[in-house]
Amino acid sequence: MKAAQAPIGVFDSGIGGLTVVREIMRQLPDEQIIYFGDTARVPYGPKGPETVRRYSSEITAFLAGQGVKAVVVACNTATAHALGMLQANLPIPVIGVVEPGARAAVRGSHGGAIGVIGTAGTIASGAYERAIRALAPEIRIAVRACPLFVPLVEEGWLDTEATRLIAHEYLAPMTAERVDTLVLGCTHYPLLKPLLSQIMGPEVRLIDSAEETAAETARILDSRGLRAQAETRGEHRFVASDAAEQFLRMGQRFLGAAIERVETTTLG
Amino acid sequence: MKAAQAPIGVFDSGIGGLTVVREIMRQLPDEQIIYFGDTARVPYGPKGPETVRRYSSEITAFLAGQGVKAVVVACNTATAHALGMLQANLPIPVIGVVEPGARAAVRGSHGGAIGVIGTAGTIASGAYERAIRALAPEIRIAVRACPLFVPLVEEGWLDTEATRLIAHEYLAPMTAERVDTLVLGCTHYPLLKPLLSQIMGPEVRLIDSAEETAAETARILDSRGLRAQAETRGEHRFVASDAAEQFLRMGQRFLGAAIERVETTTLG
Repeated sequence: MKAAQAPIGVFDSGIGGLTVVREIMRQLPDEQIIYFGDTARVPYGPKGPETVRRYSSEITAFLAGQGVKAVVVACNTATAHALGMLQANLPIPVIGVVEPGARAAVRGSHGGAIGVIGTAGTIASGAYERAIRALAPEIRIAVRACPLFVPLVEEGWLDTEATRLIAHEYLAPMTAERVDTLVLGCTHYPLLKPLLSQIMGPEVRLIDSAEETAAETARILDSRGLRAQAETRGEHRFVASDAAEQFLRMGQRFLGAAIERVETTTLG
Repeated sequence: MKAAQAPIGVFDSGIGGLTVVREIMRQLPDEQIIYFGDTARVPYGPKGPETVRRYSSEITAFLAGQGVKAVVVACNTATAHALGMLQANLPIPVIGVVEPGARAAVRGSHGGAIGVIGTAGTIASGAYERAIRALAPEIRIAVRACPLFVPLVEEGWLDTEATRLIAHEYLAPMTAERVDTLVLGCTHYPLLKPLLSQIMGPEVRLIDSAEETAAETARILDSRGLRAQAETRGEHRFVASDAAEQFLRMGQRFLGAAIERVETTTLG
């Protein structure tokens, strides 16, 4: 198999990264994808940097064993803690979600502050602040960890009164800082877009890293001559580290398409 | 060291099991305790039975290596999925939280239905229903998974308006079934007791397994001649599989006392 025909490996702590897969499928329909969701150890958000790095190494070793030509870290927490390490250790391109999200935010902002919401781990890491400041040193940034958003999304409570109250609480600093651009720094959050948009108002731009990350993946594959030829439609494999039932049940909501089969494998 | 002077091993997916440790410390002040919180893989609630059994085996192997004389599975999900397996495989007594909770519920109920709330995994396992039916085959039982309670407790939102709305939603079937006894089938839930009690009303008895589990532990140690002699005050060690910071920060709320030191160790 030529390298360009090899699959792209995509991983996340669970199913949230399927929002990134969805965008890669849309922008790169000829590519094969192998997705790994670490459902046995989800969530990464509250866990420490060392633990997240260890899990990320185990997953990329698995993906490398599957012969992937590139890895997309479709998890904000794993990107925040492990991207540099993975890029240093792997001989193939490794693309995270933070840099593309930061770039889109800086491009989208027009003089106001940029807000970033994410898991406890992503926010504590300061990764978005560093990435935004590298592009726009003077810009004001407001950050807030929103640990209840992931379980609310997984419960399917995308627009209940309780979700609305919690979102108001979490977004209060964003409104106070008058952000004009809000980075959804967790792959679960795009499902809350309608609610978050209502709360922030139509003038605030919501940045969902998935689109930018898929575009970045396309650019990097092109620059290395690794884009798949359209010989066949890309095949997509889904692998999880815990029982696949929940993956099948909830994955569709994130992927926007039915998942027919999920393989399971044990890591660690 | 005589067997009776060995520590009791207690484990949970994270910090919730500290509510059980607290009760053991109160009822068995002479006992040494070694607590293991699997914070690197928390929560177990949404995970599949096989995964939870694997994690439980790894933890009990670690505790056995520390020379414990008995193991208390201070996690409802792990008890539901792994207790039988652990009891079959370990040469020391293994005590779960489900049986003691079920017994207290049957004793506390006076003709009404018994309600059980817990994580998705605990409820799906049917463990409480089986344990209650074994004692009182005719009793009506209402169950409800409450996946948002753990993250709400960990966020410290024990009595916000959002928590209240979510609790009303979760408890609606309990009120509809007119339960007179409600089992808090997750070690995080005792922290929500004031709110849950307000919603259910003063006539509904809330069963917190911790107290019963500590009493059961005392009975089993006595029956095997394994109660520690009061030579010294019992020492308590706390071990976590992920960075100890969160453990230290949140553990006190569960334990009701300060935790001075948390060791970390890697499993799996």
